Amino acid sequence: MLKVPDHQVAGHRQARDGKPSPLIDDAGRFYKPLQDDDRGSKEVAFYSSFSSNTRVPDHVRRLFPVFHGTQLIEASDGSGLRPHLVLEDVVSSRSHPSVMDIKIGSRTWYPEASEDYIQRCFKKDRETSSLSLGFRISGLQIYGNEESRLWKPENKLVQNLSAADVKVVLKKFVSSNFPDDPNSDPDCSFAASVYGGSTGILAQLLELKAWFEDQTMYHLNSCSVLMVYEKEKVLKGERSDAEVKLIDFAHVTEGKGIIDHNFLGGLCSVIKFISEILTSPDECTTKVCLQDSDKNTNDSENCTTEGM
Amino acid sequence: MLKVPDHQVAGHRQARDGKPSPLIDDAGRFYKPLQDDDRGSKEVAFYSSFSSNTRVPDHVRRLFPVFHGTQLIEASDGSGLRPHLVLEDVVSSRSHPSVMDIKIGSRTWYPEASEDYIQRCFKKDRETSSLSLGFRISGLQIYGNEESRLWKPENKLVQNLSAADVKVVLKKFVSSNFPDDPNSDPDCSFAASVYGGSTGILAQLLELKAWFEDQTMYHLNSCSVLMVYEKEKVLKGERSDAEVKLIDFAHVTEGKGIIDHNFLGGLCSVIKFISEILTSPDECTTKVCLQDSDKNTNDSENCTTEGM
Repeated sequence: MLKVPDHQVAGHRQARDGKPSPLIDDAGRFYKPLQDDDRGSKEVAFYSSFSSNTRVPDHVRRLFPVFHGTQLIEASDGSGLRPHLVLEDVVSSRSHPSVMDIKIGSRTWYPEASEDYIQRCFKKDRETSSLSLGFRISGLQIYGNEESRLWKPENKLVQNLSAADVKVVLKKFVSSNFPDDPNSDPDCSFAASVYGGSTGILAQLLELKAWFEDQTMYHLNSCSVLMVYEKEKVLKGERSDAEVKLIDFAHVTEGKGIIDHNFLGGLCSVIKFISEILTSPDECTTKVCLQDSDKNTNDSENCTTEGM
Repeated sequence: MLKVPDHQVAGHRQARDGKPSPLIDDAGRFYKPLQDDDRGSKEVAFYSSFSSNTRVPDHVRRLFPVFHGTQLIEASDGSGLRPHLVLEDVVSSRSHPSVMDIKIGSRTWYPEASEDYIQRCFKKDRETSSLSLGFRISGLQIYGNEESRLWKPENKLVQNLSAADVKVVLKKFVSSNFPDDPNSDPDCSFAASVYGGSTGILAQLLELKAWFEDQTMYHLNSCSVLMVYEKEKVLKGERSDAEVKLIDFAHVTEGKGIIDHNFLGGLCSVIKFISEILTSPDECTTKVCLQDSDKNTNDSENCTTEGM
């Protein structure tokens, strides 16, 4: 029995513009319809290569959804049989997952793409936080402590956040107070168990980072990091099931002996934000000023370094 | 007594288009004429801020030229008194330095720049290796073992190298055989003493990397890493004086709480190339293929992972 999943947070994973949505079964599999243009076949090519690539270490492989091949099934919109990627269902099998989809990289285009695609991405990267932060939040949902309450802001509202606002959203993600309450600051009470610890999100992101410093096989253009956990488990004092998974590989290109410096830089930026929440939840931003000056070092008193 | 230095390898440090060249004295100082537009005052602002910034650790500070303020001196082209940055002379005081100037970052522009500047940089980043490698070689000179022989290719010839060619140039930089000899492969005989070791270039780049993973004060747009050493010292069995210095800060912007993910990504790419030369000088590139395919995992035999 296939059904449309409940917990899709990013636009490209939802049904729209007459395109069928993904489906899930009750055995933990996620069926993603192949996109009509070459993106579908590119994503299959990536999963085929990656799943059979013996150079990918196990601790990295588990950060990617398991690939079960492709399958012809009835599309969710009734348009008939259609090939679907069959993947591990990362999110939908959980009952009340808090989910964040972060598209990594200050640049979502790549040299091999068409000029039209490059220009569209170039524009969007500048209009969103991708250029400044090295990533953009593509979508999110956060459950309150009562499972009935869900905060799921419009994707457009979270794509272009400032550094300060991204930090607030990343705090809300791990806080016990309800995220859309404007009168209470996020309390970060789940930060240590979700972001921290030897199996937490930061540890998983650091494993990913170490791999990206070394691997020159794949460039994961326009790919997302999904962060998932369930509040009720943390509230019950159970071991956090916080998980990082990479998704969306329709624009992967061959690395050709070069590291994916664009992905790595953006990933390090996410890591820095999360590290700061863990180490100094009360914020301490170092400010410098770079005033125009053609005088000598004595001007340096105009430029201060301060904790806030 | 001021004179024009001998060892300028990158275009923007040479006299041209009627602009005066830098000068050096015999006390180890380098005088860089302030550029007329706001680049001159921006570079002074950066040096003023950086030199008085107590949050910069000493092991990072030594990777930047010492700043001695600004001074009005007679320009090298006889055009009269002109303000100059007074800096530590990193290169010219050495007798036969091999030098490489690597402009770091896949993107040399930044959001605060003018649209015209952005478009010019965007075009140049795509035309050079900046986009693909995350850096471009802006200039280099390599001495042969006989001090009279110097290889100094045109800057245009080294700005757009492939991954394979960059690796060859980085090998030539630390080889005893003369670099413009097409009949001999670079022997990498100085690699261990120049790139390797606890005080070598790789160790210095790794210190820089650790700082860039953390610091959110400065974004070093369009800045270069200079690598310098003298072959004769290594040949004599003396301790390698290999040195890394960052230069060219006319486009630095405030970090505003965000790491410089563009610089960091490019730096990691340089580090990967140099690490590979140290660990596997005989090359071993992992290749993958990403063929279009809309079939299932059984196609994975088309995609091989192989050592070459």
